[in-house]
Amino acid sequence: MKSVTVLGSTGSIGCSTVDLLLQAPERFRAVALVGGRNVQRLAEQARALRVEHAVIADEACLPELRTLLDGTGIAASGGRQAVIEAAARPVDWTMAAITGAIGLEPTLAAVKNGGSVALANKEALVCAGDVMLRAVELADATLLPVDSEHNAIFQSMADRQVSEVEKIVLTASGGPFRRSTLAEMEKATLEAALRHPTWTMGAKITIDSATMFNKGLEVIEAARLFALTEDRIGVVVHPQSVVHGLVQYSDGSIVAQMGSADMRIPIAHTLAWPARMATNSPRLDLAALGRMDFEEPDEVRFPALRLARESLRAGGAVPTILSAANEIAVEAFLGGSIGFLDIARVVEDVMWALGHQSADSLEEVLHWDEEARRAARLRTTSLAA
Amino acid sequence: MKSVTVLGSTGSIGCSTVDLLLQAPERFRAVALVGGRNVQRLAEQARALRVEHAVIADEACLPELRTLLDGTGIAASGGRQAVIEAAARPVDWTMAAITGAIGLEPTLAAVKNGGSVALANKEALVCAGDVMLRAVELADATLLPVDSEHNAIFQSMADRQVSEVEKIVLTASGGPFRRSTLAEMEKATLEAALRHPTWTMGAKITIDSATMFNKGLEVIEAARLFALTEDRIGVVVHPQSVVHGLVQYSDGSIVAQMGSADMRIPIAHTLAWPARMATNSPRLDLAALGRMDFEEPDEVRFPALRLARESLRAGGAVPTILSAANEIAVEAFLGGSIGFLDIARVVEDVMWALGHQSADSLEEVLHWDEEARRAARLRTTSLAA
Repeated sequence: MKSVTVLGSTGSIGCSTVDLLLQAPERFRAVALVGGRNVQRLAEQARALRVEHAVIADEACLPELRTLLDGTGIAASGGRQAVIEAAARPVDWTMAAITGAIGLEPTLAAVKNGGSVALANKEALVCAGDVMLRAVELADATLLPVDSEHNAIFQSMADRQVSEVEKIVLTASGGPFRRSTLAEMEKATLEAALRHPTWTMGAKITIDSATMFNKGLEVIEAARLFALTEDRIGVVVHPQSVVHGLVQYSDGSIVAQMGSADMRIPIAHTLAWPARMATNSPRLDLAALGRMDFEEPDEVRFPALRLARESLRAGGAVPTILSAANEIAVEAFLGGSIGFLDIARVVEDVMWALGHQSADSLEEVLHWDEEARRAARLRTTSLAA
Repeated sequence: MKSVTVLGSTGSIGCSTVDLLLQAPERFRAVALVGGRNVQRLAEQARALRVEHAVIADEACLPELRTLLDGTGIAASGGRQAVIEAAARPVDWTMAAITGAIGLEPTLAAVKNGGSVALANKEALVCAGDVMLRAVELADATLLPVDSEHNAIFQSMADRQVSEVEKIVLTASGGPFRRSTLAEMEKATLEAALRHPTWTMGAKITIDSATMFNKGLEVIEAARLFALTEDRIGVVVHPQSVVHGLVQYSDGSIVAQMGSADMRIPIAHTLAWPARMATNSPRLDLAALGRMDFEEPDEVRFPALRLARESLRAGGAVPTILSAANEIAVEAFLGGSIGFLDIARVVEDVMWALGHQSADSLEEVLHWDEEARRAARLRTTSLAA
């Protein structure tokens, strides 16, 4: 039996994880669940999995959680400190799916246990890459990537040494503006940008797909996860999004992972790793799909890729700055105050304005994250004016 | 240093193997080379690799080989018995690339050493599957598949257990008649049948691609290599032939291997396995390729797939009979005496005529091989009349 904690259990990744845990009660024992605000769902999950401990991040919801779990014997707690304590409880496997900078500390706490940490929080590696990797090494923990692209690379690497890998390639859907001109993109509406061709996701990540900042952040994440320099991480546009990632070996072989657009597949892979577990996810039928397309990404129309590579080469706090500035710029675009192509402009301006900063501690990371947000807010305001 | 023997070194697979050995002299020590008739090439290879022993199967060529190797210190021998003795010499890795039934005994001799045997001889598993697998188990040898499809499956399996594999899928180019009607195929000329879309190969295997008997034989080979029943071995038509094989796991993940059409890639994989070695084979560029297509194979126009599956379900000598009858039928088609669609008719008739026979020893295998050839010759003669 593998003991399991789910951080962010009421979100999309968390719900899929709970679904898988319920499918294989003989293999997994859920110890703790951590939710944000959705008490109803958290209580349901806690009851279904008969966990020891349910934690709600929003302390105001704790009385309701207590009521909902009354008589179950499940301990309930709430607030930031309770979240970090739950993350720090030693288990074999933790799902780190609290998104944003707020997920950094709990993720670090889980890493320090030395178990396996399934990483669905991009920020952990993009913004706090060095800090996170040092903690992983110190605790001898295992990072298991949940993002479909990185999970694909992980599956395709098997146990190969990085020295045998020539390069890895992440696929990108190309988003709704794959075939648009720069002029069209300049005038792109919010509605058009939210029309993602293959996956249904939240607004922030859907806009990140449209700008390809999402792929840029993934290049940064991949560099950290697989200890590769950016020149060994390629991106190929593949509108059908069924091949998720590829590894090219020194002998010329390419090994790739593919599958239908169902996050339970990569989650199940990390959950059962190094074994496999059965899922009822829809199977990919190549003959029914019929066709796959591949093309080079266009770094002129999608400067996000270039900016992400530049931030990786600069290192230190620069990827943190890129990610934070992008968050603010996307918020501004979602709020209608800046145009679509302004998102990358804001990020590039902020990167130049703040320069090459180092980030050796979580404090420094959080500092430069805040500075970048401040600078980005100024920049978006001046663009909106 | 891995010690290496190459059986069939002067053929296409053998030459590619020698090429790879010459590229990495620090990793491999070639012990013996076995050629068929091409003394010149064998002597050149033996000198270049400074092997201990060169063997020519055609004994009449031995004096010439001796002359060519004079003063090199390389031992020369010739004839069938010398071939088997060379194959039986203990080495870490043997390339078994003597094609046809004539390669069975040397391949078995190599297997009995208990080392790794890279298998490029399809007949070994198709015709003498049970015998071969028993010898492998007894000697605790390792079979490494060289065929691009099976090598792809092997790479995609990594070290996964078969219980975690839902199914494997072999890709097929579909051959020159992928888009032809049955009426067109009935009248297909030899010239049209020899026009293979992606690989340049010998006449027999090119016709086998056109009829899809090649894929049928590969399904049989895969069933033996990976211990899978035929219902867990799929075939998908993929005209670009860059994805060579796919493994679908119980969690819904598909892992696949792809690469350019260069046999040095799978050979290098078996040679360096479980590590990898660098090759200068052309790299597959997905964006330059642009597009991949996939479709269901049509078992009405290509009865070979159905016949191969039937032979697998019947077991015993039936796959041997299918393979031998096909060889004779292809010869007759190449000789112009029967039509293209007659090839499958001959095979089906011979399978029915000889019925379900067992084949527990090499003698029985060779007996039913001979019987099938005799029956197929009769059938082709009556069709030609």
